[in-house]
Amino acid sequence: MRMTQEARRALRITLDYTNMTDKALGERGISREELLARKKLAAKAHEALRRDRGKEENFLGWTELPYQSGESVKEILKSAREIRKKFDSFVVLGIGGSALGPMTAFQALCHLHHNELPKAKRKAPRFYVEDNVDPVRMKDLLDVLDLKKTCFNVISKSGATSETLAQLLLITALLKEAGEKPKEHFIFTTDPEKSDLLELSKKLGGVKCFPIPRGVGGRFSELSAVGLLPAAVLGIDIKALLLGAADMDKHCKSGDLFKNPALMGAVLQTIAMGKGKNISVLMPYSDNLRCFADWYAQLWAESLGKNMTLDKRPCHLGQTPVKAVGATDQHSQLQLYTEGPFDKVVTFLSVGNYRKSVPIPDLRTGLLNVDFLGGHSLEELIAAENRATAHALKEAGRLNATVRIPEINAFTLGELFYFFELMTAYAGYLLNVNAYDQPGVEAGKKATFALLGKKGYGQLLKELDGEKPDPGCVI
Amino acid sequence: MRMTQEARRALRITLDYTNMTDKALGERGISREELLARKKLAAKAHEALRRDRGKEENFLGWTELPYQSGESVKEILKSAREIRKKFDSFVVLGIGGSALGPMTAFQALCHLHHNELPKAKRKAPRFYVEDNVDPVRMKDLLDVLDLKKTCFNVISKSGATSETLAQLLLITALLKEAGEKPKEHFIFTTDPEKSDLLELSKKLGGVKCFPIPRGVGGRFSELSAVGLLPAAVLGIDIKALLLGAADMDKHCKSGDLFKNPALMGAVLQTIAMGKGKNISVLMPYSDNLRCFADWYAQLWAESLGKNMTLDKRPCHLGQTPVKAVGATDQHSQLQLYTEGPFDKVVTFLSVGNYRKSVPIPDLRTGLLNVDFLGGHSLEELIAAENRATAHALKEAGRLNATVRIPEINAFTLGELFYFFELMTAYAGYLLNVNAYDQPGVEAGKKATFALLGKKGYGQLLKELDGEKPDPGCVI
Repeated sequence: MRMTQEARRALRITLDYTNMTDKALGERGISREELLARKKLAAKAHEALRRDRGKEENFLGWTELPYQSGESVKEILKSAREIRKKFDSFVVLGIGGSALGPMTAFQALCHLHHNELPKAKRKAPRFYVEDNVDPVRMKDLLDVLDLKKTCFNVISKSGATSETLAQLLLITALLKEAGEKPKEHFIFTTDPEKSDLLELSKKLGGVKCFPIPRGVGGRFSELSAVGLLPAAVLGIDIKALLLGAADMDKHCKSGDLFKNPALMGAVLQTIAMGKGKNISVLMPYSDNLRCFADWYAQLWAESLGKNMTLDKRPCHLGQTPVKAVGATDQHSQLQLYTEGPFDKVVTFLSVGNYRKSVPIPDLRTGLLNVDFLGGHSLEELIAAENRATAHALKEAGRLNATVRIPEINAFTLGELFYFFELMTAYAGYLLNVNAYDQPGVEAGKKATFALLGKKGYGQLLKELDGEKPDPGCVI
Repeated sequence: MRMTQEARRALRITLDYTNMTDKALGERGISREELLARKKLAAKAHEALRRDRGKEENFLGWTELPYQSGESVKEILKSAREIRKKFDSFVVLGIGGSALGPMTAFQALCHLHHNELPKAKRKAPRFYVEDNVDPVRMKDLLDVLDLKKTCFNVISKSGATSETLAQLLLITALLKEAGEKPKEHFIFTTDPEKSDLLELSKKLGGVKCFPIPRGVGGRFSELSAVGLLPAAVLGIDIKALLLGAADMDKHCKSGDLFKNPALMGAVLQTIAMGKGKNISVLMPYSDNLRCFADWYAQLWAESLGKNMTLDKRPCHLGQTPVKAVGATDQHSQLQLYTEGPFDKVVTFLSVGNYRKSVPIPDLRTGLLNVDFLGGHSLEELIAAENRATAHALKEAGRLNATVRIPEINAFTLGELFYFFELMTAYAGYLLNVNAYDQPGVEAGKKATFALLGKKGYGQLLKELDGEKPDPGCVI
């Protein structure tokens, strides 16, 4: 995978924050003075990331994923080739960071009805990501799988994720029942040193395992084997994905926020947070990027939603991410966004060239609301709606920014992943929180363990059993 | 469709607001005094709805949809039978309220891999709802359709929705190219008196049209032909759907908020809004109800997100709806929900009996994190996670309520639709806003018209052409 400097530049995504400024929004906008006042803090955040990058102990291994060894990529491509040859279906068993990246790349870069295409057109196994434990969904999935022709990629950093382990137990038993060797149908992606999946691999006779490097947390893992193996199985150019990420890294080398889009994005969002904008809407104008908004939602929410600063002062920080899709949600959320409270920042993901073109025929019906559409194309219509929505929000005094994507391909998707990861990391420094832990989910996990009778949670179970709905509060 | 009183009662959904109260949350909760202080206002809201219900001029036709004539239901069932016999695929062309209801019923009540099932198992046409104008998505859809065997249900109240009309023009031309008569492949669902679709029906030789009653707005239209025809085509028991809605109507007859769950729901949410909770999370613990959360998001956002009260005082009201899905989003949003700002109310949709069962085998691996799961079932696991999450939120002082659904079927889905519609209508009265208009989307529509050169928008186009990104704000 080689690309000229020029080709890369033509594919560079950009941040346009015109409609975040006071020039566009008057006093509802952010002034240059406000930005300049953050210049030093931003440079410090940039310097902190530069200093820590790659450090395993800080969970900053993700910064180096674009530069992983050719060997590890080769190994992934080799397995992918074998899987494509041997299996009709490929199922990811994972949840959270183990699911959202693979789903995002699939939706962004594959046919939107991939699983319904005949094999010859599909050219890759059918693809499923099971990121829940709803029994209806699991049964329904089993209805469309031929187990003998299915590969299951079990993804869990710790190897101790209850949802994923429950699925693994089920599939293991079903494979055995079908007379298949589980070992030949499983691939594990997990911590290479300490993980229950490593133990299970042994017990199942040596399941092939791919590593998630120790310093890479779930929500920052898409560019590790977590995302790369499923993508490669689908025939996605994973080298281009990594190259795009590396290009974004380079593009964000500067400590000057006016020259570093990820740093500017983080500064703008944190200024907005300081002004009470507790909602961050990501609004792609593309069905291919629906899932990207879900991926971002995890990254932004889990990284910044914290009750303690790095220096251990209590806080309740975080912006709630919301997915909206254009033009669809103009007919669902736009009314609120233009007239409701001034409580959000909308970030558009705008596509330059859609990879397919659909002209709208001119049928000359004589109807005013119909005929103006003829002669245009769907891509013109959706792009016009995107521009119109940004305009309407601006007119209503609402902060909005646009990330422009020249076209959606593996390279630009790599840029996008890395851009938002960088922006999140910078925002963590700016807010002075640890962007890499998630202590707030422990209480729920423990309560689940207690309810299912796991050893050591007897006291908590008693407490939970004492908690009944108040009959006076049930109608 | 007959059901005993007892059968209905067993299927009744309930609202449990224990974790909204000060008994559960201390001073972060809502006290009985606060509720009692709203008793009169709530009774007034209830009385206003009772007075206005069914009124076309108030857009309150939706309240009577559960009681629509047997004739109109018969007509829908007749068409549905013909469609099921004649076509392999059924495509809804619509956006917003014309799409979300049909998608919700499909996902709630059909097989989750419906379109991938062989015809004999599916027993209904493959089903698609096209609610966007992304050219990639349209091309990809066309790749999996056999036009000669496809029925297109074009849904638009006004008949003037640009996105839907663009799709209609395209499909009309394609059908003609394929030597098919468009008339035989289209069904229109629209205003029965004034709609461009009525004109187009004539021009196409008389396309069959189903009515959306005049007093029924898009986001309240699911129980009209908008939702009933697609549901009937899928083999969903639409009489049970209507019966469930009627049952909920009856269940909410009281003007006493302590006896009327929809009224209590509205009062609780508006009290929370007054305390700065500007985010409303709907969190179903069921993949079948994912789309229900999107349907709710439109209903709640568009109805209450307003900049003007009924007596014409300026305001900026509205709560931003967020979809989260359990257990999935415990691994994405829960960290923020437990530790972030106290800015949201989480409403769980909890399922009593999942309609399928998946036991988790006990494989005795000797691993602590694995073996406690064996012998349970996926339905136990997901229910335990739901309970654990409610507990964790309560412990963290976060407002949360639970809507309990004994099981997901057509009857309970009817209850759910009507419950949230009622709650939204009550909230409109409580907030003193018009829950049935959406003036805030006009600016965006006009700008789109201008950008596409529609007559009469020349001045606006000039203005838009003058708006360029500030080069200093593009990185």
